[in-house]
Amino acid sequence: MWFIEKHDGTGFMVRGEKIFEKMSKQKIEIYSTPLGKMLVLDGKIQLTEKDEKLYHEMLVHVPLLMHPNPEKILIIGGGDGGALREALKHKPKEIKMVEIDKEVVEACKRFLGIDNGAFDDEKVKIVFDDGTKFVKNCGEKFDVIIVDGSDPDAVSKPLISKEFYANCRKLCDVFVTQSQSPFLQNEYFEAILKNSNAFKQRRIYLSFVPSYPSGMWSFLIAGKNLILDLETIKKRYEERKIKTFHYNPELHIASFSLPNWLKELIKKYGLFC
Amino acid sequence: MWFIEKHDGTGFMVRGEKIFEKMSKQKIEIYSTPLGKMLVLDGKIQLTEKDEKLYHEMLVHVPLLMHPNPEKILIIGGGDGGALREALKHKPKEIKMVEIDKEVVEACKRFLGIDNGAFDDEKVKIVFDDGTKFVKNCGEKFDVIIVDGSDPDAVSKPLISKEFYANCRKLCDVFVTQSQSPFLQNEYFEAILKNSNAFKQRRIYLSFVPSYPSGMWSFLIAGKNLILDLETIKKRYEERKIKTFHYNPELHIASFSLPNWLKELIKKYGLFC
Repeated sequence: MWFIEKHDGTGFMVRGEKIFEKMSKQKIEIYSTPLGKMLVLDGKIQLTEKDEKLYHEMLVHVPLLMHPNPEKILIIGGGDGGALREALKHKPKEIKMVEIDKEVVEACKRFLGIDNGAFDDEKVKIVFDDGTKFVKNCGEKFDVIIVDGSDPDAVSKPLISKEFYANCRKLCDVFVTQSQSPFLQNEYFEAILKNSNAFKQRRIYLSFVPSYPSGMWSFLIAGKNLILDLETIKKRYEERKIKTFHYNPELHIASFSLPNWLKELIKKYGLFC
Repeated sequence: MWFIEKHDGTGFMVRGEKIFEKMSKQKIEIYSTPLGKMLVLDGKIQLTEKDEKLYHEMLVHVPLLMHPNPEKILIIGGGDGGALREALKHKPKEIKMVEIDKEVVEACKRFLGIDNGAFDDEKVKIVFDDGTKFVKNCGEKFDVIIVDGSDPDAVSKPLISKEFYANCRKLCDVFVTQSQSPFLQNEYFEAILKNSNAFKQRRIYLSFVPSYPSGMWSFLIAGKNLILDLETIKKRYEERKIKTFHYNPELHIASFSLPNWLKELIKKYGLFC
């Protein structure tokens, strides 16, 4: 049986056997595939075991190493636990995770286990709520906010709104969100650039994520004082004793080098590159 | 109608209409797709108009800018003319292109035109011959050799042999070959690493190529004195007045920063990283 995900007249296929399906706020499916177990929400691949580290490590370690001392971290989305697992490596005092769909966490705990025990860590507090409401009414501040949402065409649509970004800006020093592919379905990417202008300083970095559309994935990082210096990042990586499968400090710096066509595109939205 | 290319239990699909088909040394097909016109050889996508520049610019400008003065260039394969088009931007004295299949060049001239007139440039000499035989019997030397072959499972299989690499080494200062995906079908990638050990100094660099398996594509570059210094590369890029859509000197340097898992893999074959 082949699972197929289509976008812009192209498609990605994976041979697989469905091992779980549940209708919740969204359709949750888990498959067993040649890329390992695969989580699908509303028909879109969220992760495969074979490449989830490429995504999660770049999503999490880039912002956390650009902060001198991330003690309080907020993760919005990330129901599979991969971002949580990576964030814990920085030994923060507290991580709050706000996930809209409890059923995703339950399914991932039962069938995937990529959280590697992170859901049960005593520093972690999981809140099942709408992330946009949470940041609107939030009285706390965080060192870093990490937004790990699905494609912004269903449940995650409000996570790319102007209001959401403006609220996040007030709550943190460093903000990061996955920002879709700049190559395919780039209306999503451009909507994120357009709506996130509450942040003064914004940059885009890239990673290979083979199971996502086009394999060319982007992240938007924003903050007041984004330091992008190899020696600083290296020092923090070593001091915090981070172990990674994919990420390293050289790759961190390199991921901010963008191709000409992408530089042109993001300049139109006032981004620095 | 959907064109489908499968590999390792995954697949890439493109909606398309076939506008040309011919059986030559290989099956040549050209489609009209949402990614622009698309060339397919023996069932494998060789290029789409939307992302061929990502591939050709990284294949060509990286080696040519790592050579101080590339006057004589040999391209093996590259029947679509994209590598030729990019190489001409360096204003060499002579480019020899050795392509095994005349029909590919004819079809690309007629239906694609991505060579942008390069096939008719007076500095270009096209030889229709087997690249492995050519380098075996070649009395000439070249500044740079660029190998732009298809997947090494059919016509291009000899282009990843030990003998071919050993012969190329004798003929040039800088050598580059596309080296497949290190993420999917990585038996090809590893065969290239294993067989290319005639070269003393070898390095791997990466580029996004969305229409190739996994979108994560690699290149093997080899030579006697590979200089990877941003200032040098930038100076040459400016002096030669190169105009590019995707490539820039910062991206050139960044493309050599590899993820941890890939560093581990290439170290096993004695590569420097």
